[in-house]
Amino acid sequence: MTGTHRLSTPVVPSTGALRPLGTDEVRITGGHWFERQAVNAAATIRHCLHWLEALEWTANFDRAAEGKEFKRTGFQFSDSEVYKLAEAMAWEIGRTGDPGLEEEFQKLTARIGAAQHEDGYLNTAFGSPGQGPRYSDLEWGHELYCFGHLIQAAVARFRNHGEDEFTRIARRAADHVCDTFGPGGIERICGHAEIEVALAEFSRATGEARYLEQARLFIERHGQKTLKENGFYYQDDVTVRDAEVLRGHAVRALYLTCGAIDVAVETGDAELLESLRRQWDRTVARRTHLTGGMGSQYADEAFGRDFALNPDEAYSESCAAIAAIMTAWRLTLATGEPHHGDMIERIAWNVLSGAVAPDGKSFFYANPLHQRTADPEPPTEGALPHLSAGGRRGHWFEVSCCPTNLARTFAQFAAYVATTSEHGVQIHQFTPCTIDTDVDGARLALTVETNYPDNGAIAARIDANDGGARTVSLRVPHWAEGATITGPDGIARSAVPGSFAGVTADFAPGDEIRLHLPIEPRWTYPHRRIDGLHGCAAVERGPEVWCVESIDLPDGADLADLAVDDRAPLSERVGRIVVQGLLGDRPGEWPYGPDADAGSGGPAEIALVPFRLRDTRGPAAMRVWNPIA
Amino acid sequence: MTGTHRLSTPVVPSTGALRPLGTDEVRITGGHWFERQAVNAAATIRHCLHWLEALEWTANFDRAAEGKEFKRTGFQFSDSEVYKLAEAMAWEIGRTGDPGLEEEFQKLTARIGAAQHEDGYLNTAFGSPGQGPRYSDLEWGHELYCFGHLIQAAVARFRNHGEDEFTRIARRAADHVCDTFGPGGIERICGHAEIEVALAEFSRATGEARYLEQARLFIERHGQKTLKENGFYYQDDVTVRDAEVLRGHAVRALYLTCGAIDVAVETGDAELLESLRRQWDRTVARRTHLTGGMGSQYADEAFGRDFALNPDEAYSESCAAIAAIMTAWRLTLATGEPHHGDMIERIAWNVLSGAVAPDGKSFFYANPLHQRTADPEPPTEGALPHLSAGGRRGHWFEVSCCPTNLARTFAQFAAYVATTSEHGVQIHQFTPCTIDTDVDGARLALTVETNYPDNGAIAARIDANDGGARTVSLRVPHWAEGATITGPDGIARSAVPGSFAGVTADFAPGDEIRLHLPIEPRWTYPHRRIDGLHGCAAVERGPEVWCVESIDLPDGADLADLAVDDRAPLSERVGRIVVQGLLGDRPGEWPYGPDADAGSGGPAEIALVPFRLRDTRGPAAMRVWNPIA
Repeated sequence: MTGTHRLSTPVVPSTGALRPLGTDEVRITGGHWFERQAVNAAATIRHCLHWLEALEWTANFDRAAEGKEFKRTGFQFSDSEVYKLAEAMAWEIGRTGDPGLEEEFQKLTARIGAAQHEDGYLNTAFGSPGQGPRYSDLEWGHELYCFGHLIQAAVARFRNHGEDEFTRIARRAADHVCDTFGPGGIERICGHAEIEVALAEFSRATGEARYLEQARLFIERHGQKTLKENGFYYQDDVTVRDAEVLRGHAVRALYLTCGAIDVAVETGDAELLESLRRQWDRTVARRTHLTGGMGSQYADEAFGRDFALNPDEAYSESCAAIAAIMTAWRLTLATGEPHHGDMIERIAWNVLSGAVAPDGKSFFYANPLHQRTADPEPPTEGALPHLSAGGRRGHWFEVSCCPTNLARTFAQFAAYVATTSEHGVQIHQFTPCTIDTDVDGARLALTVETNYPDNGAIAARIDANDGGARTVSLRVPHWAEGATITGPDGIARSAVPGSFAGVTADFAPGDEIRLHLPIEPRWTYPHRRIDGLHGCAAVERGPEVWCVESIDLPDGADLADLAVDDRAPLSERVGRIVVQGLLGDRPGEWPYGPDADAGSGGPAEIALVPFRLRDTRGPAAMRVWNPIA
Repeated sequence: MTGTHRLSTPVVPSTGALRPLGTDEVRITGGHWFERQAVNAAATIRHCLHWLEALEWTANFDRAAEGKEFKRTGFQFSDSEVYKLAEAMAWEIGRTGDPGLEEEFQKLTARIGAAQHEDGYLNTAFGSPGQGPRYSDLEWGHELYCFGHLIQAAVARFRNHGEDEFTRIARRAADHVCDTFGPGGIERICGHAEIEVALAEFSRATGEARYLEQARLFIERHGQKTLKENGFYYQDDVTVRDAEVLRGHAVRALYLTCGAIDVAVETGDAELLESLRRQWDRTVARRTHLTGGMGSQYADEAFGRDFALNPDEAYSESCAAIAAIMTAWRLTLATGEPHHGDMIERIAWNVLSGAVAPDGKSFFYANPLHQRTADPEPPTEGALPHLSAGGRRGHWFEVSCCPTNLARTFAQFAAYVATTSEHGVQIHQFTPCTIDTDVDGARLALTVETNYPDNGAIAARIDANDGGARTVSLRVPHWAEGATITGPDGIARSAVPGSFAGVTADFAPGDEIRLHLPIEPRWTYPHRRIDGLHGCAAVERGPEVWCVESIDLPDGADLADLAVDDRAPLSERVGRIVVQGLLGDRPGEWPYGPDADAGSGGPAEIALVPFRLRDTRGPAAMRVWNPIA
């Protein structure tokens, strides 16, 4: 290992309101995220490796290394899946030190490295005999996008292990990108943002200033219309600085925003940072589903217009959820604002966690909030599905960006739990964990215990405090009306939703800070401007969105005929929330008339499930938003 | 004139429950449809002629006639616009005997005829030097579609004038089609249905049995997959007989249904007729907007799935409305059921009438029920709009199927007003008119007087009755709860909505039958299965759907923030319906929360306008369905 313990985290700004903690400083020790990390390690990473080998997306590197014409497999961006899996492995090796995985990582490193050209260029879809020349299709070729994921994997390797052959491959690649796309070179951008955020972080990791400068150049070039047509789609129509909201392809827009925040922070560009924060806030307020899902439209996998948030057309790609967490985390660090942590929590529980099956081997690509029909499972053999359709998770996809992206995110999840400032520690995500860091040069260690969100009690116990008066702060979610915080004095004080609740004391080992969050199920209603949701209500409980699945309806009932009674109490029974519903009339000859809601089909009691657990009990139609009786 | 007075109507089945009346038997004498016909004659027909000349879609015939390579203008189906206008002219000449129009018609006849090949083939987009060979693109070439409109125009000419050069051109074309596409010929279909309905009616008009047989062959070939791919779109995936609902491209589906009904009626194919009636009823019950508009999706101008009826995505093409009227009329004649007349009324008042501006010179192509923004008028010069976008009528379009289609429909509108049976007369549409026909061989003449739908009083006065006991029946719309009918005895009896209310008597001149329909504004609600309309209500009054336009909101208010109070009374004031509304909060940081509808923006009183009169007072956002406060 080189460097200090502080480095093992994906984002390390040189300045900002809060300082991130490394995955060696925060260890998740139990609960939901511990289980998700265990499944990721035991199943998902190896599942991805299996598919990359089986589809020969790894073998493309071996063939490219031979320098002869070859038959390539996969889409032009399949190299990036290998890199994202390498990143997942690097984080997982850092987390557990798994020697088998380390061996796999080194094998992969050798295969990737063999395909690298002498000048640092590395891509299995361009530049070999019989292929298109390098950078001949910046719009759709994804070469810089692939470099970006290679470099992000190298950031992970560097911070979990230190310099090695993998990081040297990435350095050669990053140098090649700077040489080729710097001033006087190809003064254009890639059709899929990603190189920006990667170069900015690699600069932070390695100290190489030219990588940051190249990231800045790419950010500034967006909106200069250096790409053909389609500028809106890949954010080349308006400069990043002048944009008013996130728009176009959602993952592109969010990766670009991450890179732009990093550049703004590192270059002290307060105007750019403020513009990005404004764009993000408007996107959250007008273009985000209840689950935190972003990118509302299937067409172009893109952000829709403000308030166009139809539940069944919610594309809400898993990769966009990951990119949104990346964005919200960068804003947390830069601004210290608590509400970005709310958004991370919402996305993590509802989209991220649910995107992977409990066994870690199948995945949602899109995450709509309404599935009309109970469809069969996608095939595991033969032609791969293009993406998860029909409300079922798929084992792999033609465009398989999400599985490897999910794998790297679970492996690094501890990085999003806590931060420090010069006064103390801030806890953003609630999970059993240990935190062992220093504040203003003195050790502060805590153990967090909680069954959240099964219940709303979160306790942080001081294990060590070498530094005197310190503030321990916990995020109070915006929905937590009636929350209280209790310090070592045992007095419960009310905590303000949407803020950090802090206790300041000269803590001694054994001191406890207890946050209580009211976790009862609640009805949630949409703003009137969302046309797709008039007259509907959803049920939330803590950070989780719940849904109805058709398999929980009375025999023969159709989910399309259900309305819910939001005046009846929500009750909890053996881990389920039970709502009172009314099954409506079957359709007649003309679907409009004077009766607002006949509902003669009779009453029904329906048990809900968390949205993340949908499609785990067999084919089902599903709704998050249900019409109100 | 040749033939009897009974012929001047677009559909003359040889058998059926009801017998249609010709436009010489029914004369519209006042009111809304009289005005619409007058505007059509004075403005629309000449407006269309102007554009066909200006864009050289007529000149294509002159150039094709020269037999040399030429630069053609317009889409491959532009010949059909010339034919639809010829049909409009033929009906209008029949209606008024306008000698100027007759002269234009004959000029057009000569130009069309000059382009006809010796064997009857006629199309300006194929078969000339430098063009694709005949029938080389049955999927998209529209050759048989164009023949269909030529032949429909010939039906109109034949029935309003008798045999002439135009009808002879059509006979040669029809013979060519039979020769080419009959058994042993090209046993395929056209990608756009239309030839079927045209050949069936031309067979009725001319007595040529082979035209009906050819129509039957085309109908039976649909679903045999003789076209490449896209079978769903042009109804070639499933046979007409086996289909369960109208689907794919809406105008294609409806024209095909019309032709299939005609074939079923003429060949005595009760099974086919019953299948078509079932498909239509399901389409009405599940795939039709409140306005009667059909084809809910912009993508492919197609029917959406059941209950997918989002108001802003309502494509509801004007041509689909015309085709739906044609379908409902055929079912009226075949079955005698009154509810098809309800549908004709709904479509006619809300889509057909509103599709043409009051001055007759601009047109809606699509007729969505929700327009989010107040957009400027489409250009009258330069590049033509592809279709009416932004909620404004356009003067002409690149694909300009609607204006000429509207023109022919207004000119023949009297044909849809009344029918006879052996017992009497049935009045389907309420307009001031005279009806002069015979029932069972004896003259029966009536005058209908009404200001409907300004009020709900319809009076039919007997002018002559040479036949003894007769029944005069009037359609009672399905919404008309509380309707009454009064015969010569002066006693008002209750009339059942959704039926014909009949009075039987040995009528003498001066006797009156009076129908009273309750015409008060009413709230209408959607069926629960329509996800796009949960929690919304619309206002109807008689057959008309009304809407809110943003220009009627208080200054600075946004239509997106309006909710309506459906518990407050609807009041009428100087021709407007006034609703109580509540202007909602502007959006905040997160568009979901515990308050169902804050509505602190305050109350508002909003005057509605009939949907057909939207976009007649300047740019406006518009909604038919408004969320309920």
